[in-house]
Formats: sequence, structure tokens, C-alpha cells
Amino acid sequence: MTPIVSVFAASPDRGRGLARDMAVRWALAEVGQDHELRLLSFADLKTAEHKARQPFGQIPTYETDGLTLFESGGIVLHIAETHSGLLPTNPAVRARSIAWMFAAVSTIEPVIVEREVAVLLEADKPWTHERLPMLEARLRQRLDDLAAWLSGRDWLEGDFSAGDIMMVCVLRRPASAMLLSDYPVLAAYVARSEARPAFQTAFADQKARSDAAHG
Amino acid sequence: MTPIVSVFAASPDRGRGLARDMAVRWALAEVGQDHELRLLSFADLKTAEHKARQPFGQIPTYETDGLTLFESGGIVLHIAETHSGLLPTNPAVRARSIAWMFAAVSTIEPVIVEREVAVLLEADKPWTHERLPMLEARLRQRLDDLAAWLSGRDWLEGDFSAGDIMMVCVLRRPASAMLLSDYPVLAAYVARSEARPAFQTAFADQKARSDAAHG
Repeated sequence: MTPIVSVFAASPDRGRGLARDMAVRWALAEVGQDHELRLLSFADLKTAEHKARQPFGQIPTYETDGLTLFESGGIVLHIAETHSGLLPTNPAVRARSIAWMFAAVSTIEPVIVEREVAVLLEADKPWTHERLPMLEARLRQRLDDLAAWLSGRDWLEGDFSAGDIMMVCVLRRPASAMLLSDYPVLAAYVARSEARPAFQTAFADQKARSDAAHG
Repeated sequence: MTPIVSVFAASPDRGRGLARDMAVRWALAEVGQDHELRLLSFADLKTAEHKARQPFGQIPTYETDGLTLFESGGIVLHIAETHSGLLPTNPAVRARSIAWMFAAVSTIEPVIVEREVAVLLEADKPWTHERLPMLEARLRQRLDDLAAWLSGRDWLEGDFSAGDIMMVCVLRRPASAMLLSDYPVLAAYVARSEARPAFQTAFADQKARSDAAHG
């Protein structure tokens, strides 16, 4: 069967490729695997039907023969393991590419999301103005280290891999993107990734869906 | 060679098994793989020598023939892939077990760490008293969903797996542990895990190291 990816029927980012299905769409485009969409409203996410697919009521999910999968990292890794092109064959480089997938969602993304939560959910609170510089400092510490690693490298670990897909999707989030002009190495890394034909295909697909939904 | 795991020379948790090497030690004990320790001070973490092992200057790292690996999730997955017993052989169940590893570090842990950061780094701030209930509500939303999933299950996905190691290490963190009495399903899951001989071996090892360091 053609895999089915669940996405927002009307993504709140209005087609900027920031929803978590972007990593899955991009991975599928890189390996040349078609997919179909399951369009979900916010109300759909909290139904028992969707929680059977995704225990935390989120997108994306990935459904194929005999398998329903969740977590964008888990889905991208599964796509990489069942298609060629997203993980190196050398076992050591492969293990490090997977480690970078975990670094993206576990070491970099949380400090980005924390800053976004402050702006989105606590914007009206008196403390947010004073907290934002602290949150930005924590994020810059991570970006400093990542930029140091990527200096002189095109990709995180040898050739382009699933680790780059996860990392770039994290760096494209607004709280990170607004700082990238201070990190030419990271800005160039994101630009190099966005220039890939598979990224452009996936981006155009999600944008067309968003445009259709938002009119 | 015997793998080398880098750990805090004197863990700030004083042997409660809360440092991120615990998942790696536990996984190694489950598969019966010996290891040696590389003991690092906080100053050691920020050296160029350690950042070559771990780009963000953290523990743990895992070194074996021709491979230096970082990120506890990446290390545990590598151990599971190179030894038997931590991932099911059925491909679909295996993919879901790995998805749970990502869920642990990407969906559950960030809301736990956010609450811990508020207590540890912002305790003296006037807003923390008002923020804590908001952070706890966000964490409870995740724990509600996780408890619903684990209801009637011993482990996240069939037999005990690497997904359970990552999830239990996250749930044992203080901001989560203090709420577990409200979640009998999760408390029983953590207790069931802690009763495993491999957990007890790993826990005793890191406690003995901490006791020796702190005197």
C-alpha cells in the first residue's frame, strides 16, 4: 500500500513547512516514495480513533502495511531503514547519523520550543519580557556548539542523512531562524538543505495544501 | 575492546541514577555487556578534547572500536542494534519500540526538564511561583496520555525494550517522580522496571561511584 501520513487539514503555520510532518514529507521525497495524506482537524487529534494511532494526539503518523507509526524521528528513521539514501552503509557513520537525529529533537529542539512557548502561551505574562533573554542565551549556547561542529562540514556526518533532515527542520523553527543571521555556518547549512530538490518538493506540497485550506 | 562510557566523576544527583548515563548503563546491563568508565569533571566537559567526543559538552559518550557515539538515545539504540534482547525481531514492533524512544526524549522529557529548569535556574525569580502550576499542567497532559496507553500493558510495546529504558529514565526525573502517586499505572510501570536485575546492577554501580566521589 502507499503509506498514509497524517497532517493538519489546515496547518497553523500557513504553509511555512514548520509542522512536524515536514520532516516525514521531506524524507519521503528524498527516497522517492509516494504517500497519501490523512487530513485532521484539531478536534480530530483528540479523538480515541486518532489516539490509537498517536497516543499523545499529535501529528504526524505514518501508516503502511501492518504498521502504524508515530513521532517524526521514529518515522524518518523507519523510512531511512526501509529505503536507501538517508543513512550511510558504514556502521559507525550510520550510528552517528542516528545520534544526530536524537541530538536534534532532544538537545536542540527543547530550548527552541521553550522560547516559542514563552512567546505563544505566556506573551501576556509580566515575566516574559525578562525571561526571553535567558531563554535566548540557553539556545545560543546550543547553536554555538552546533556551528562549531558544522564549521568546514557540508552535513552533520559525511553525506546528507536523516540526521540532517531532523536537524534542519528544528533549525527552521522561528525561535532558531530569527538567530541564524548571527550564525553564518548554520544559515548556510539550512540554505544548502532547502535547495535540495526533495526539500522543495515537500515544501511545495505542504504549502499547496495549506493554501487550499486557508483559501 | 571493552566499551568506555563517559560519566560525571561526581554526579550532581549523588547516586540517584538521574544522570543521563543511567540509560546507557542499564542497557549494557540488560544485554550483559561489560564497560569501563571515563570519569569527567564539569571542567572536563567543556574542553576541546571532550567536545570532539560530544559536540555539546555533555555526558554520556560511548567509545568502542572505531566509533565514538553520543546522545543517550543514540547510544542505547546502538547497543540494542548490536546486542540481542532490547529490540523485538518483528519489524513493525521494532519500529514502534524505537518510536517510543523518540517519544521519551522528544515528547515527555522536555516538559519535565522545563519544570526542573524553573526550579533550579529560576527559583529566585518572582514569576516562578505562578509559572509552576502552568508547567505542571503541561506535564500532566503528557502523563495522562502515557498512563492511558500503559493501562493494561506491562511494557510500552509487547516485551520490555529499549523504548522502556528511555521512558523509565525520563519518568524517574524529579519533576515527573513527584507526580507519579497520582498515576498508579505509571508508578507500577516504573517500579516494575526498577525491579529488573539489570536496572539494579546499573543503579548500584552508579551509586557506588557517587558514594566514592562524594565520600
